[in-house]
Amino acid sequence: MKLFYSPASPFARIVRAAAIELGLADRLELELTDVAPGKPNRPYAETANPLRKIPALEVQSGLTLYDSSVICEYLDSLAGGGGLYPKDAAKRWRVLTNFSLTKGMCDAAVSMRYEVAVRPEPQRWSVWVEDQWDRVEGGLKWFEQNPAQQEGAINIAHLGLASLLGYIDFRWGDRPWRPKYPHLAKWFDRVEQRPSLSTTRPAVPK
Amino acid sequence: MKLFYSPASPFARIVRAAAIELGLADRLELELTDVAPGKPNRPYAETANPLRKIPALEVQSGLTLYDSSVICEYLDSLAGGGGLYPKDAAKRWRVLTNFSLTKGMCDAAVSMRYEVAVRPEPQRWSVWVEDQWDRVEGGLKWFEQNPAQQEGAINIAHLGLASLLGYIDFRWGDRPWRPKYPHLAKWFDRVEQRPSLSTTRPAVPK
Repeated sequence: MKLFYSPASPFARIVRAAAIELGLADRLELELTDVAPGKPNRPYAETANPLRKIPALEVQSGLTLYDSSVICEYLDSLAGGGGLYPKDAAKRWRVLTNFSLTKGMCDAAVSMRYEVAVRPEPQRWSVWVEDQWDRVEGGLKWFEQNPAQQEGAINIAHLGLASLLGYIDFRWGDRPWRPKYPHLAKWFDRVEQRPSLSTTRPAVPK
Repeated sequence: MKLFYSPASPFARIVRAAAIELGLADRLELELTDVAPGKPNRPYAETANPLRKIPALEVQSGLTLYDSSVICEYLDSLAGGGGLYPKDAAKRWRVLTNFSLTKGMCDAAVSMRYEVAVRPEPQRWSVWVEDQWDRVEGGLKWFEQNPAQQEGAINIAHLGLASLLGYIDFRWGDRPWRPKYPHLAKWFDRVEQRPSLSTTRPAVPK
């Protein structure tokens, strides 16, 4: 299966980490893919994902899955099911919502990046950046106040949260979050030692 | 169960339409909720969704589900399962990806709206608006070229596509899509007559 990805994308990192956790990493052929707002990658849009977003997973000719949620659930089912998505209903809805929260935080952090790195300087709006950061912090605060959610067997929301925290360190190192969220900082230091996360860390700061 | 929503949100419309299709509409108490970038709704962020996005579904004290995907899957399971999400694996991954495509198109169309309605005029960037519209059109073209995806029993991707098309008509009536996508236009005219869609149409054309 071919995974369209970039090393900097927190969403692609979630998928790569999930594949490693599920023992499926050797089934993935990684295809470096350039996507950026305002610079349409037409071949990719036409053959893989009309939204021009990564990651996407080509599972067979004519069937390319996206977004990261769909891909991770597919990988989980390939591995037998229940590996990263709890089967127990009560746990499942909590984990799916936690995962959705981490993906929303990633969206916000990526949107901040587009604002300062893609948009021309005169068209930047600091209110936007701070509004998005406030959403990231809203999520950080929630996880800090609900440490039980970081316990138990590793699940898809944990991978989402770790990818988000790694992305903040990578792109937003000037916004130190550890002093305000000490439980989260301790959890992240520990969880990032798992091979699924230590081997997928974004490589080049900035 | 309390659904936090606004009448203009295409994501909230998907959930409302899903509840109607599944026969669960009378279980939902609709709570009109104001959210806008740069104008944090703190009580909502603290009690419902730290991302300050709608929709969210409070299913019990201490458990509020989001985003629209999680809520729709939850409603589908409440109704017995397999109503809007195919149980057959081959169909399921296709439908989940189609749904993901429609949600990405909604994200793009909402992002265009923020650009022209929320952001101060000097900070607007037309390249952004056209890039997002190009993503919407990428999806429209894909669905136009794959009409078989609009056939068969109504599924969650159909509700996503109809909500997106309704949102374009509502917010972007100056971008006529019907002449370029005639199959889609014909399908939309027909599907929007379903009570789930005819009763959830955004009310005030702006």
